[in-house]
Amino acid sequence: MLNRSAFIAGNSGKWRVLSVSPVRGQPLDFASHIEVTSAENSARGASEVWRLEGQISNLRYATRGELKALRSKQEPLGRPQARYAAMIPIRKSASWWDLAQDERRTIFEETSQHTAIGLKYLPDIARQLYHCRDLGQPFDFITWFEYAPEHAQAFEELVTSLRATHEWQFVEREVDIRLELQP
Amino acid sequence: MLNRSAFIAGNSGKWRVLSVSPVRGQPLDFASHIEVTSAENSARGASEVWRLEGQISNLRYATRGELKALRSKQEPLGRPQARYAAMIPIRKSASWWDLAQDERRTIFEETSQHTAIGLKYLPDIARQLYHCRDLGQPFDFITWFEYAPEHAQAFEELVTSLRATHEWQFVEREVDIRLELQP
Repeated sequence: MLNRSAFIAGNSGKWRVLSVSPVRGQPLDFASHIEVTSAENSARGASEVWRLEGQISNLRYATRGELKALRSKQEPLGRPQARYAAMIPIRKSASWWDLAQDERRTIFEETSQHTAIGLKYLPDIARQLYHCRDLGQPFDFITWFEYAPEHAQAFEELVTSLRATHEWQFVEREVDIRLELQP
Repeated sequence: MLNRSAFIAGNSGKWRVLSVSPVRGQPLDFASHIEVTSAENSARGASEVWRLEGQISNLRYATRGELKALRSKQEPLGRPQARYAAMIPIRKSASWWDLAQDERRTIFEETSQHTAIGLKYLPDIARQLYHCRDLGQPFDFITWFEYAPEHAQAFEELVTSLRATHEWQFVEREVDIRLELQP
């Protein structure tokens, strides 16, 4: 059985919210903190502003060669120096989901170099993708990034590059939440 | 928002159970009927023996060419002549889910001809795939098939062909439930 994660925005939590910026579509309400926990164990708190859930799942596009390259360079979440995080929930359009697998793969990598762009910033920017669409959530994915303060500029380059791709034209809702680990 | 389906085994329902056969791994308990309904609306009934949930999602392997071929021949569930159904929940092994997308695609279609085999039996055997893995369910998928009694032999050929493929070697749990529409 897999473990679903809950991202709970409220007035307490491990991560202090620096900003909540709507990038495209409907925003999310501001809350001062976000806690990431297991969806199974987390009762709804009195201060809960919103909650999103996501599930780590199998990769949908990466080839074996890309997977090898990623795994040789990537580092896990939770590194002590990674005091900054970004939580970016996105929803893609119906026209994206109506594409066949080969068409999505071509846009994702051959055209937009989604994996190649992320790879450039490894191991500095750690990254975890959570799938939400099949859970009936308001977003299709949540990507969670963690990095040390000295890589903040590199992170801006990374998100700017991703938003400039053909793939990103299929994004119909995106919110960009920046976080700092509580001291 | 997508709609999750619930498959509820109990002592009432639209479909009368003819047989529940464990094909691989742990069986499911026998119940006389199965009802297929929306997971959101269905309260747990007193007679419920088990319940599985699944979500119709985007296709994970089909190319545009395959999708065109499927859509030009397939018919929907619910045809009045399709009085027989089969519900086949399966779970694949961790080694399947650890494969990269290109490796899974190669086994699914280039080696095992999963889509090509199904296509041979269209439009007689209608088919709907439900995804369960990311929902934390005990199975990864439920495939629901519907056909008229005169195509029962064709259906046996179809499932025999699929179970003989390389892809099926990754199946670690499978239950085969045969059903007849209540008169």
